[in-house]
Amino acid sequence: MNSSMFQTAELGQSVSKKAFKEREQILRESLLDLQTQLRADGSFPMLIDFGGVRGGGKGTTTNLLNKWMDASYIETHAYGNPTGEELQRPYWWKFWRDLPPRGTIGIYLSGRYSRPLLDYVYGNSDLDTYLQRLGRIRAFEQALADDGALILKFWMHVRAEAQKERLEALQNDPLNSWRVSEIDWTHYQMYDRFLEAAEVAVSRTNTGEAPWEIVEGADYHYRSLRVGEVLKEALTRHLKRSDIRRRYLEELSQEIRDADNAADGSHDSVRTKTILDALDLSLKLKKKPYRRKVKELQARLNALHMRAASRDMSVLLVFEGPDAAGKSGAIRRVTEALDARWYKVHPFSAPTDEENARHYLWRFWRCIPRKGRVTVFDRSWYGRVLVERIEGFANDVEWRRSYAEINNFEELLVEHGIVLLKFWIHISKEEQLARFRSREETPHKRWKLTDEDWRNRARWEDYAEAAHKMIQATDRQVAPWILVEGNDKNFARVRVLESLCEALERATSE
Amino acid sequence: MNSSMFQTAELGQSVSKKAFKEREQILRESLLDLQTQLRADGSFPMLIDFGGVRGGGKGTTTNLLNKWMDASYIETHAYGNPTGEELQRPYWWKFWRDLPPRGTIGIYLSGRYSRPLLDYVYGNSDLDTYLQRLGRIRAFEQALADDGALILKFWMHVRAEAQKERLEALQNDPLNSWRVSEIDWTHYQMYDRFLEAAEVAVSRTNTGEAPWEIVEGADYHYRSLRVGEVLKEALTRHLKRSDIRRRYLEELSQEIRDADNAADGSHDSVRTKTILDALDLSLKLKKKPYRRKVKELQARLNALHMRAASRDMSVLLVFEGPDAAGKSGAIRRVTEALDARWYKVHPFSAPTDEENARHYLWRFWRCIPRKGRVTVFDRSWYGRVLVERIEGFANDVEWRRSYAEINNFEELLVEHGIVLLKFWIHISKEEQLARFRSREETPHKRWKLTDEDWRNRARWEDYAEAAHKMIQATDRQVAPWILVEGNDKNFARVRVLESLCEALERATSE
Repeated sequence: MNSSMFQTAELGQSVSKKAFKEREQILRESLLDLQTQLRADGSFPMLIDFGGVRGGGKGTTTNLLNKWMDASYIETHAYGNPTGEELQRPYWWKFWRDLPPRGTIGIYLSGRYSRPLLDYVYGNSDLDTYLQRLGRIRAFEQALADDGALILKFWMHVRAEAQKERLEALQNDPLNSWRVSEIDWTHYQMYDRFLEAAEVAVSRTNTGEAPWEIVEGADYHYRSLRVGEVLKEALTRHLKRSDIRRRYLEELSQEIRDADNAADGSHDSVRTKTILDALDLSLKLKKKPYRRKVKELQARLNALHMRAASRDMSVLLVFEGPDAAGKSGAIRRVTEALDARWYKVHPFSAPTDEENARHYLWRFWRCIPRKGRVTVFDRSWYGRVLVERIEGFANDVEWRRSYAEINNFEELLVEHGIVLLKFWIHISKEEQLARFRSREETPHKRWKLTDEDWRNRARWEDYAEAAHKMIQATDRQVAPWILVEGNDKNFARVRVLESLCEALERATSE
Repeated sequence: MNSSMFQTAELGQSVSKKAFKEREQILRESLLDLQTQLRADGSFPMLIDFGGVRGGGKGTTTNLLNKWMDASYIETHAYGNPTGEELQRPYWWKFWRDLPPRGTIGIYLSGRYSRPLLDYVYGNSDLDTYLQRLGRIRAFEQALADDGALILKFWMHVRAEAQKERLEALQNDPLNSWRVSEIDWTHYQMYDRFLEAAEVAVSRTNTGEAPWEIVEGADYHYRSLRVGEVLKEALTRHLKRSDIRRRYLEELSQEIRDADNAADGSHDSVRTKTILDALDLSLKLKKKPYRRKVKELQARLNALHMRAASRDMSVLLVFEGPDAAGKSGAIRRVTEALDARWYKVHPFSAPTDEENARHYLWRFWRCIPRKGRVTVFDRSWYGRVLVERIEGFANDVEWRRSYAEINNFEELLVEHGIVLLKFWIHISKEEQLARFRSREETPHKRWKLTDEDWRNRARWEDYAEAAHKMIQATDRQVAPWILVEGNDKNFARVRVLESLCEALERATSE
């Protein structure tokens, strides 16, 4: 029983060679022109996905698009069996890695839909799992679309009989028989199940922001022109939209900033405490017990990490907190316990041009380690809801939706088996001032203190409020925040080491 | 192990009575003023949800909000054990039924989160099911937010010890002991599990469009002011946003209409056929076999419906197609077989004011039948992607996202066990003209023909294209489109009856 969802692409559409040549010329010029506009606009990337059965023209259409437009600004990615690099990392890593920068085009073959679909068709995953994976795809596409991306998905459809005829024709042609493999026939046998799975995928992920277009794939001329046309129409529309949308978001943020400023005078929040105020910053540790404890804990950490690495477990540590809270010192106490080949510290400040050209999470996905490694983020994706929120680098709509994006991101890491801990090292406002002064007075520390630090300090209460809200929205058992009393550096460092050891103990004894 | 997500609401925040009185007065005036603005704006509703443990002040805060603002424009809904009405219908029915009209406020206690959460806490559903139900909630909230709604969710939190103390105090007070039931103590025993489940719900559904705010619930003064403040800030922001958003969407649709019109001259789509062209409209059935078949099929349908009704199965039939395609006649042949107490036909044309004041799907949810009934939709939610799309009643962004909304809506019906069939009765353009002429010439049929029919006819190709795309996006095994060749009325009616009987046969023999 063939669903008529796909019957819309079994109508025998075709185009003569002559008509094709004529139309191709016009279409090509339009597409090239639109691609130029896309580059000039530079505010969003375009992602094109091809799915469908063998023989629907996924490959030839991809080549054609590269030929019609300027291939220098198109990346084509085909995912076969995962590479060693990919196997070592969460499933979603490669899709984030391969995001095209704004203003350019990414084309994907056997992309994010491929593995979930085949697993379901082969019976390696049940419907529940399949639907959950499709839900992850939706979240991924939603995050990119919210960021402005244009996403198009083509399902290249061919009738079962047509597929069979084509495979037979290839097989009977001595020069082409190598093109047909055992797996092609296996897939042909599973045609109905494949289509059933495709129907689920298409209908569950056919959103306004990332629509599917089912294209009749039997006739080369027809399908090529059809894909080109859909692409042309969508890109034309999106370029208009992008411009209006930008103005809308700017106006919106301005209005909200104005309203906030107007309200600022009264500052009438009833909340008098944040969760940071609940910390007992008088906690201290004397030098002697500190030294002993650090030694013990580092030895324990080293052993625990070896145990974790032998189980292919990676560890991901995030450090946030006010300037001069002692993040670097605490990080050093952790890394001292590890061999340099096994860890990497990533300090984050303003994004580079390359990073700015993509979704804000891209630069963190880049740093996701191979199995068995320890990766330390000195500042992190939480910048989105801290500095970017407060300085207005992310607008009101952007930072508000990012709690959900961050939770989703962290779930993908944790599901992959990564141990994720997030440390907020906290100090009092007075302690920060004392440390700033000491930096000013110590020549070899002076470089550590910038104008930005003073600027941030002036907005201390805003940061505390933002951190409170961030902890409320993103603290979960699977990816907990550990709040560290940091006025005494010794105490803070031991607390970090202890928490890390405990977490590894738990994770490796499961 | 208590997650610090909730620890952000265990800080001992409190407000003195005197300070409360002062602040309350100011807050109340602001809220009342904002409520007036909300009514004047009239473009979106506000939904407020309260969740949390017993004693967090869900009820008292609800009463307070009703007191602070004008209760005439607030609906408060509390869901206890489902009523007979509700049990007879899909789980989501009551939440759609209780949507507030634009410009007003709906407050929900034990709302859409309650059942999924309790089922998980009690172990009646596993994590997979819980996450899927949370996914449904997300889709519901997304659909409303896309339509402009302001959605706020408050989690009223109280520490376990505080909850215990409160229950004990009530129990020991002769005048209040009736307030404490066995179930309160049962829930108290399950506090940790409850919180764990809450963490999952909050983190999975804390989106930019429908954020959660965790409120410290122990102190009456504090929690009341806090809820009021969050509400005030969000409503202020949303009123600004609503205005800018409306202008943005208008500008966008205008630009897209202009672009479409500019492209219209060339009409350069390579697609020459729609799936409707694949129908063989020459199919006919002579009078005699037609009469016999109708009789047989109606008898069969009656028996099958009784079988379905005895299994509490409802049937939902959708009829779409060009004007004068013969929908009413086909519907009559179906209903003739049924007792009038068991079926209902809903003809849909332009929405009423009440319907227009809510999400476009609301008016269809209203008509979802009790178990065992047959409900016929003469025109339906598909108007969104047909007439509303073509006439511009739904803008480009709206109709494009509605495929996903419709698929989701139909899944909820089907999961409830409803048999859903969608008929597209098709006729040729020539046949339509002949029928229009005959209506003009027959006095008792003249009322059936309106100017609108002629206007629609002028856009025949646009409708065909829209129907093609609609079928591609929404035809699924679980909710199939049945395309009926309608040039011959006899043939069409028999085909409808046959398809319905077959579907019921399958459904009742499972």
